[in-house]
Amino acid sequence: MKMQTAKGVSDTPPEEKIIKNQVLNTLTKVFEIYGFAPLETPVIERFETLFAKSGAGEESDALKETFQLTDQGKRKLGLRFEFTTSLARYVAMNSNIKMPFKRYEFGPVFRDGPIKLGRYRQFWQCDADTIGTSSMLADAECVAMLSTAFNKLNFKFEIKINNRKILNGILNQAGIKDQKEALISIDKLDKIGKEGVAKELKERGYNESQIAKLFDLILGKVTITSLKKSLIDEEGIEGLNELEELFSYIKKMGVKEAIFDISLARGQAYYTGTVIEAYLINSKITSSIAGGGRYDDMIGGFMGGNRVVPAVGISFGIAPIMDALKMQQELTTKTPAKVFVLPINALEESLEIVQELRNAGINTDISLGKKGVSNNLQYASSLGIPYVVIFGEKELAQKKVMLRNMETGKETLLTVKEVIKRLTKK
Amino acid sequence: MKMQTAKGVSDTPPEEKIIKNQVLNTLTKVFEIYGFAPLETPVIERFETLFAKSGAGEESDALKETFQLTDQGKRKLGLRFEFTTSLARYVAMNSNIKMPFKRYEFGPVFRDGPIKLGRYRQFWQCDADTIGTSSMLADAECVAMLSTAFNKLNFKFEIKINNRKILNGILNQAGIKDQKEALISIDKLDKIGKEGVAKELKERGYNESQIAKLFDLILGKVTITSLKKSLIDEEGIEGLNELEELFSYIKKMGVKEAIFDISLARGQAYYTGTVIEAYLINSKITSSIAGGGRYDDMIGGFMGGNRVVPAVGISFGIAPIMDALKMQQELTTKTPAKVFVLPINALEESLEIVQELRNAGINTDISLGKKGVSNNLQYASSLGIPYVVIFGEKELAQKKVMLRNMETGKETLLTVKEVIKRLTKK
Repeated sequence: MKMQTAKGVSDTPPEEKIIKNQVLNTLTKVFEIYGFAPLETPVIERFETLFAKSGAGEESDALKETFQLTDQGKRKLGLRFEFTTSLARYVAMNSNIKMPFKRYEFGPVFRDGPIKLGRYRQFWQCDADTIGTSSMLADAECVAMLSTAFNKLNFKFEIKINNRKILNGILNQAGIKDQKEALISIDKLDKIGKEGVAKELKERGYNESQIAKLFDLILGKVTITSLKKSLIDEEGIEGLNELEELFSYIKKMGVKEAIFDISLARGQAYYTGTVIEAYLINSKITSSIAGGGRYDDMIGGFMGGNRVVPAVGISFGIAPIMDALKMQQELTTKTPAKVFVLPINALEESLEIVQELRNAGINTDISLGKKGVSNNLQYASSLGIPYVVIFGEKELAQKKVMLRNMETGKETLLTVKEVIKRLTKK
Repeated sequence: MKMQTAKGVSDTPPEEKIIKNQVLNTLTKVFEIYGFAPLETPVIERFETLFAKSGAGEESDALKETFQLTDQGKRKLGLRFEFTTSLARYVAMNSNIKMPFKRYEFGPVFRDGPIKLGRYRQFWQCDADTIGTSSMLADAECVAMLSTAFNKLNFKFEIKINNRKILNGILNQAGIKDQKEALISIDKLDKIGKEGVAKELKERGYNESQIAKLFDLILGKVTITSLKKSLIDEEGIEGLNELEELFSYIKKMGVKEAIFDISLARGQAYYTGTVIEAYLINSKITSSIAGGGRYDDMIGGFMGGNRVVPAVGISFGIAPIMDALKMQQELTTKTPAKVFVLPINALEESLEIVQELRNAGINTDISLGKKGVSNNLQYASSLGIPYVVIFGEKELAQKKVMLRNMETGKETLLTVKEVIKRLTKK
């Protein structure tokens, strides 16, 4: 029998998982610093829940690409394809939750779709959302978290911000109905340019005058100040005010990477206000590394009735972030072990030394019955362990051990306490 | 539409997830201190893989209780029900892995079985295994990791250890074939006593003389020393030597909680040597909190051919460990936030203060547009946030803020630097 993973899913081997854990730990730290609480929802949801009103965004695609299963009781179930639906279900089920509810969640999500480069059937998402407040301060916290996280990861990045109400206002003012189609075109302005957008809009049936009015408002150097003069539509002005408030907050919060970008629309239909997208600067990775926005109608719609439950959130792309980190550092480390202990005819004595290193908080591996010094050194080297501690009777007689730096090959005779001091220094 | 989770799965709300993360972080730390590397295998496996030779233990039950699904290409898939099968597949697929391969993995596993108290359809497992060495030092590391982990969690516990070869030897010596059935009875000695075991063995067709010989060897105070005199079967003696070696290692490693227990067998058929099980002492939780053992035939069998790939591992029960922690501490904390910032007509100034606290590494929440001091204090209190920082123009004029201890109600006028000093102290 040939051993293989299921199609479209893959293992994360130690050298990659070590980096993934770095990313997840950094993001967790940032979420908690900002007062977001962890929540875990199950991988399996009722099929009905996954396709409840407004839950799925692009519903038909999601439906087709959802892994379906049934339990022994013939109940129809599905594997989650994102977290927002489960979050909405959780909020709907727990009416005693104190609002605003700030939560983060990460883990695997699933889609049974075509497999392309970088598109897997199981992949990780990492979301933070604030439910139950329309305060722009919640939007500002989302932007500030992106800034804090990517600075912690030493990225060069920018955060593009827009507001759907501004875009709606512009489209209203240009006399464009069917705004969903137009938004998809505008979102491509960066990629296909003015001519490309004009062509698409024409194909979609908009006339020259509408397109000209639209371009008047979105082309050139569009700033909050310029829009304040040109935009007269009421919804547009409301969006402009929200955007201005948001920028005043993030400025106070010390965010330096945020810019207003009138062409940012984001695909999903459910956004109602702020939209956010973060990109690396001067990087081979040109896809966004995080994004999000405000979706005030979705959760209430999901819960039924007339409840309005405003919400804003961001989602980090674990795959592109890992790709960026892999470009910064080589994947030579296949273990968290910092030191490998290699006793020569001194196994019993070695165990106390090993535990002393471990008790000092040093990640320590030990030779497990491998024969010979060179075999063991080769093993430690192939795993990328930076130090080896070697000793036999001679060293032990002096109450010392030999510390070998695996990068330089330099060996130093030290007491165990000195080894601990050296390895815990950094 | 009524919102609910799928049957048999549940959400982990913030107050529980905070504790779960504490457990997982502690275990991760211990695994890495012992030089184990993280691996992530997918939730979805090929159905064929899950039921490859020796992969599943109690195969028929596992088969019935495995969630099955198909992808768009009509491939038959399943949700993993444990990690060992995926680990075996990973080792089989990656022939360049350096042995011994020490890895840990945790995450959700699935079973579509009947739901009882504490038995869910999605639950977490947390495993550490060493593949590719028969050194008893690897078994000793497993025991030592249990000891380190449970000491870090402040548990009172004991680790029972036995060796299947000893049990096999005893059964051989008593003339008992069909050892699998007999082992299941012996494993119940603690629960059903001598008479219960005797009754079961009779029902299974063993005669009085066999049962008497068996009881001679396993009843009373059975120690390594006593067995050295009474056990003459070759396999039994081999097991005894392994056990002795294991105990000599863990003693050197400072493990104080391990005891030899001749009645420990563990259910799974695949164990070939050391078996381990950890229990809380003087606790309402009487089920084991971790267990494991050596399974030298399973991975090789899985890979086909005649390869022998020795292996030993342990698995932590996240649910009973969390239950034990919940008995130690109340679940009053619903957020990681340590301080809640409440500005009174001073929103703009507050943002700088909030970021100063966050930059100092303090988990900080801020009032998101909630009106009134008492409303906000109530919110902070209901989430279990221990401190609130309150200030208005009066305090800001003095360049100070009011720090309120939510437990005592005591308020102190401090500079932000003094607040940081106080909150980062512990």
